[in-house]
Amino acid sequence: MARAGVTRLAVTSPPNVTWLTGFDGSTACAVVEPDRVVLVTDRRYAEAATALAADGAMSLVLVEQTYDETLASLIAAGAAPAGIEAGHLTVQRQRWLAAVLAAGGRGHGALVPTMDVIEAGRLVKDAWEIERLREAGRRISAVAIGALADLAPGQREQDVAQALEAGLRRAGFTRPAFDTIVASGPRAALPHGRASDRTMAAGDLVVLDFGGVYGGYCVDLTRTVVLGAPTAEAARVHGAVAEAQQAAIAALAPGVAVSEVDQAARAVLARHGLADRFVHGTGHGLGLEVHEAPRVGPARPAPHAPLPGTVVLPDVLAAGMVVTIEPGAYIPGWGGVRIEDDLLVTATGAEWLTRVPVMLSVH
Amino acid sequence: MARAGVTRLAVTSPPNVTWLTGFDGSTACAVVEPDRVVLVTDRRYAEAATALAADGAMSLVLVEQTYDETLASLIAAGAAPAGIEAGHLTVQRQRWLAAVLAAGGRGHGALVPTMDVIEAGRLVKDAWEIERLREAGRRISAVAIGALADLAPGQREQDVAQALEAGLRRAGFTRPAFDTIVASGPRAALPHGRASDRTMAAGDLVVLDFGGVYGGYCVDLTRTVVLGAPTAEAARVHGAVAEAQQAAIAALAPGVAVSEVDQAARAVLARHGLADRFVHGTGHGLGLEVHEAPRVGPARPAPHAPLPGTVVLPDVLAAGMVVTIEPGAYIPGWGGVRIEDDLLVTATGAEWLTRVPVMLSVH
Repeated sequence: MARAGVTRLAVTSPPNVTWLTGFDGSTACAVVEPDRVVLVTDRRYAEAATALAADGAMSLVLVEQTYDETLASLIAAGAAPAGIEAGHLTVQRQRWLAAVLAAGGRGHGALVPTMDVIEAGRLVKDAWEIERLREAGRRISAVAIGALADLAPGQREQDVAQALEAGLRRAGFTRPAFDTIVASGPRAALPHGRASDRTMAAGDLVVLDFGGVYGGYCVDLTRTVVLGAPTAEAARVHGAVAEAQQAAIAALAPGVAVSEVDQAARAVLARHGLADRFVHGTGHGLGLEVHEAPRVGPARPAPHAPLPGTVVLPDVLAAGMVVTIEPGAYIPGWGGVRIEDDLLVTATGAEWLTRVPVMLSVH
Repeated sequence: MARAGVTRLAVTSPPNVTWLTGFDGSTACAVVEPDRVVLVTDRRYAEAATALAADGAMSLVLVEQTYDETLASLIAAGAAPAGIEAGHLTVQRQRWLAAVLAAGGRGHGALVPTMDVIEAGRLVKDAWEIERLREAGRRISAVAIGALADLAPGQREQDVAQALEAGLRRAGFTRPAFDTIVASGPRAALPHGRASDRTMAAGDLVVLDFGGVYGGYCVDLTRTVVLGAPTAEAARVHGAVAEAQQAAIAALAPGVAVSEVDQAARAVLARHGLADRFVHGTGHGLGLEVHEAPRVGPARPAPHAPLPGTVVLPDVLAAGMVVTIEPGAYIPGWGGVRIEDDLLVTATGAEWLTRVPVMLSVH
């Protein structure tokens, strides 16, 4: 907060509220004051929130009318300007809060846009979070191994997705972390091919990309396999992507720039003539969100200096960060390959959170 | 757009983009110009977007760097100020766009906050949308009837949720519209009781509340039943909620205020001594989103006049609106009842989109 220039902060991002307070209901916000954290939720969650606040480390306010009326009251109750999360508050809510504060005599400057204050804290996971992510990684690996064993020609993509999601539930996941991707045959060329009613055939490449939320934390895994005997081209592309993934994982270590990790994968694919076929970044952070910092991708020149109130997130890795490494190659009309694992950056390199054999084919 | 005072509009709400363009990929935005609509998406969706733009009614721009850089270029390319969707753009994206436009010589006023411009168009469904919602309603009704028939003591809430979600997929739904609610016994008192690992017992009240997305459109259905013989109290509360739902549905007609529909349900529950047990609104609009306008709830005094650029949505019903009617009563420690159907407002009243018997008990 000091780096963003504020002494108070209105937190409106649900995962940021969860990280600060432990509250994981669907609706809440929080205000960080110099001497306390205030959790704001509504009557539906009174019981759960009261239990969380019982040890006195946190204050609790239940919404009477609307969330934003309560938030405006809390902001108005303090003298110092309040930071807002510019990335997690709409222009409309900001305008609305400003109008209510102005009606109460608080002028321009009562609200200060900030960026990435809480996200900076979430970047490096603590021991408790790492243990959850390890357990989630073990569990999703078991689901993947089972799903790969059950895969066969004649099944529809949708049925495979349903079986994967049922497997996640049985394994203790609260829900899928995103729409499950099952993309077979030519559809494997779609980096985001949600499961369709296509029936898979012998010889198809099949991309399975699925994620789960376990105890609030997200993991994400992809395997691509051929159903039956692979063609030489499938073996070549699959091998190149697997090698690119290994190179990126080998590059993981504290102090390494995320763009270097991305470049490690990209260089391998370029060597195999597949540079233009890798159309997305190499990976992303995992935690309370399935896509969070750090982004593992090419360095991007910013079009202007960071805006005031921004906490600039580091572009180098640190021990305790958790990322996916998921290079891919996509050839329209033919198919594609993506291989993804989840890794914890450690003091000396990286620890695999997911452990699933990388197989070229199943039958 | 004229009502909001703009001739150009940057559309950043995904369902608003879908409604305008037919594009339903996960990432896109659009710019409405006086003479054309421009769809902005990225290379992942090039094929699908090109097909949509093939008839020439829409222009297509593929993102080279980032969405907001592309959006800034499109806004800068026109002379008139551009409306932004204040409810669907973060403060950060607005600040970022304004900084880029300022660097290009476009000062204060290049971006004009607007509210509910596209939502005003989405309120009344056209014939094509109504046919989809009818089909979705038929299909979710069949899923509900099957799920109620299969319900039995000894099952875990999670297993019931999984079966419901599998049923949705088999019935052609793309995905659940929200986390499926299965709340049994005392948990039925939680209006948003996501399925837990609780095992249901004979005599339990069980609330099933689930929704599905079919061809992009959302439907949402709730039934509450007793597993076996109901107590007198369960029969009384169930009867009161069913009567409240009937009263609200009977009130649906063009020209009627949504607050009157809400009041119709509330009056019945008050007559049964359950006024304080009904802790949420009576319903909400359905369409590309599972919660959209109109909100069917009590009239709320606004703390200030609408902000500039706001299209004020009507608070009366019109033919072609689609809403849920879902009163409930929740008694902490004991349980609760909610009954929900989806209705199309017609020229003379309302048409049921969901048709599932309202049963007090199953066994």
